[in-house]
Amino acid sequence: MEFELIEILRARAAMARADVRLGIGDDAAVLAPPAGHELIAATDTLVAGVHFPSSTKPEDIGWKALAVNLSDLAAMGATPAWALLGLTLPSADRDFVERFADGFAALAAQHHVALIGGDTTRGPLTINVTVLGFAPPAQALLRSGARVGDLVFVTGTVGDAAAGLRCLADRSTSSASIPPDACEALRARLDRPTPRVAAGIVLRGAASACIDVSDGLLADLGHIASRSGVSIEIAAAALPASSALLQAFDADARLALQATGGDDYELAFTLPQANEAATLRDLAKTGCGATRIGRVVEGAGIRLLDEARNEIALPRRGWEHFA
Amino acid sequence: MEFELIEILRARAAMARADVRLGIGDDAAVLAPPAGHELIAATDTLVAGVHFPSSTKPEDIGWKALAVNLSDLAAMGATPAWALLGLTLPSADRDFVERFADGFAALAAQHHVALIGGDTTRGPLTINVTVLGFAPPAQALLRSGARVGDLVFVTGTVGDAAAGLRCLADRSTSSASIPPDACEALRARLDRPTPRVAAGIVLRGAASACIDVSDGLLADLGHIASRSGVSIEIAAAALPASSALLQAFDADARLALQATGGDDYELAFTLPQANEAATLRDLAKTGCGATRIGRVVEGAGIRLLDEARNEIALPRRGWEHFA
Repeated sequence: MEFELIEILRARAAMARADVRLGIGDDAAVLAPPAGHELIAATDTLVAGVHFPSSTKPEDIGWKALAVNLSDLAAMGATPAWALLGLTLPSADRDFVERFADGFAALAAQHHVALIGGDTTRGPLTINVTVLGFAPPAQALLRSGARVGDLVFVTGTVGDAAAGLRCLADRSTSSASIPPDACEALRARLDRPTPRVAAGIVLRGAASACIDVSDGLLADLGHIASRSGVSIEIAAAALPASSALLQAFDADARLALQATGGDDYELAFTLPQANEAATLRDLAKTGCGATRIGRVVEGAGIRLLDEARNEIALPRRGWEHFA
Repeated sequence: MEFELIEILRARAAMARADVRLGIGDDAAVLAPPAGHELIAATDTLVAGVHFPSSTKPEDIGWKALAVNLSDLAAMGATPAWALLGLTLPSADRDFVERFADGFAALAAQHHVALIGGDTTRGPLTINVTVLGFAPPAQALLRSGARVGDLVFVTGTVGDAAAGLRCLADRSTSSASIPPDACEALRARLDRPTPRVAAGIVLRGAASACIDVSDGLLADLGHIASRSGVSIEIAAAALPASSALLQAFDADARLALQATGGDDYELAFTLPQANEAATLRDLAKTGCGATRIGRVVEGAGIRLLDEARNEIALPRRGWEHFA
């Protein structure tokens, strides 16, 4: 039965790539990395009820499990190539696996990623994906390169995924107050995040530091600040909001979602000022704009500032597992 | 808290390797694969209560999670290099993680494997490991190369791990009948399997097909037979048994364990007859002998034969998840 489930995954997501010498079906895959490149590797696990609502559709779980990993590659400026999947399921649910594979394969096809390894096991629903990609030598984007004077940006809009989760809670109350259209758009951002792969490649050689927004904007920028030995000031009024977020939440709720909501999978990055114009022009070509939201200063930690440059205190700075 | 757990893993298992440009601590690792080699990649998930008894010590879980993956690389004849770990835990149990990391690191050090990616999440105890290694171009050992006339071998001894599991069940009954010393030896084989990495490298360029014994000898040889389009005859009397297995089980019970017990992580392989002497000599140098147990014939499937060449029927041919 295990072989049958793996075969469903293989049939839908194996994807022909000349650099896959041997894919799913032996003890391991045999791959031909491109000469003269570095290999970029990331792994992420999703647990039902922890990383996605238990009501999430199997297609969306498949999409998201790959998306959060491709987002890690995007944050390094890597070109994705191959993925391995560990799928743990309560029972051999063929329908679930087919739908999961459809969602996974839909995103994999967009980025020409081949599923080259798979393992299905029995247990509580847990999905582990490992992705492998490439970057030219010494060009991968790190968290540690931000310098005082650099500008801070984020792609797309932030807060939408956390707002989508809020919609889900809202809908289950008798006094549902968030407009259904906005909820649908926000929920789509939660369930089908867009890994900013093309943006990451543009940022290679331009950005001084980069991270993807998975735990919340301030928490993730905090990693750049601490690894780079700098402080970052963020202008609350500059944080980009989607029209759905504007429609569904008032200013205070919106700011909390934008600053601390996780799961957006946008890229937050720092740029030397000299690179600003060219980088924004190149990013626009990828279809993914970026907004200037702050700057790198001396010191440590993150400060969220209002228009009078007073620090805004927020209840929590992103979500940590086991917190 | 997540960061603290990852730091425990990183501190104990990161292992200095010149080809790790950037290890745990960014969005992804940056690696320098050796020029002119193929990359070999495998992934395996262990679920508590499914892949190891819930009473297994954290150190042994850490060891085994890496061992089963290194065994996949061994079965390809690959030289291991890097590992990524997805560790899902019910709670942020620091003691568990430290002991898990110790077991993982002990085996990683033996094979000079660096842990280059880690993710800890909250959920039911589940461990996913992805390993990466190398082999010279077109030399990886496949399941599909067995030819009629080849001889069939297995390294070490088989049946011990399944016997170790039987000991565990035996010990919980009032009429415990298996000698404690034998139980301890068999349980060690279950909890701390030895991936046959050096043997796999010796077999590169010599064996025509290879697989590791994870689901049971007959089941795993069945994969070689079906992928190679051949049949395999196994001589029951030739199956290698450890002294602990001989001491603890009678002939009938022993044969069932040897032929269908899983989790031994020995290598089963086929050799053209011309390679037999040199290969066995080279294997002996690695400290891991191999026993000739059968031959490749025309047809399909696996036949287990007694000394009069009559087929022996066994109740089941290895263990499948969800079966």
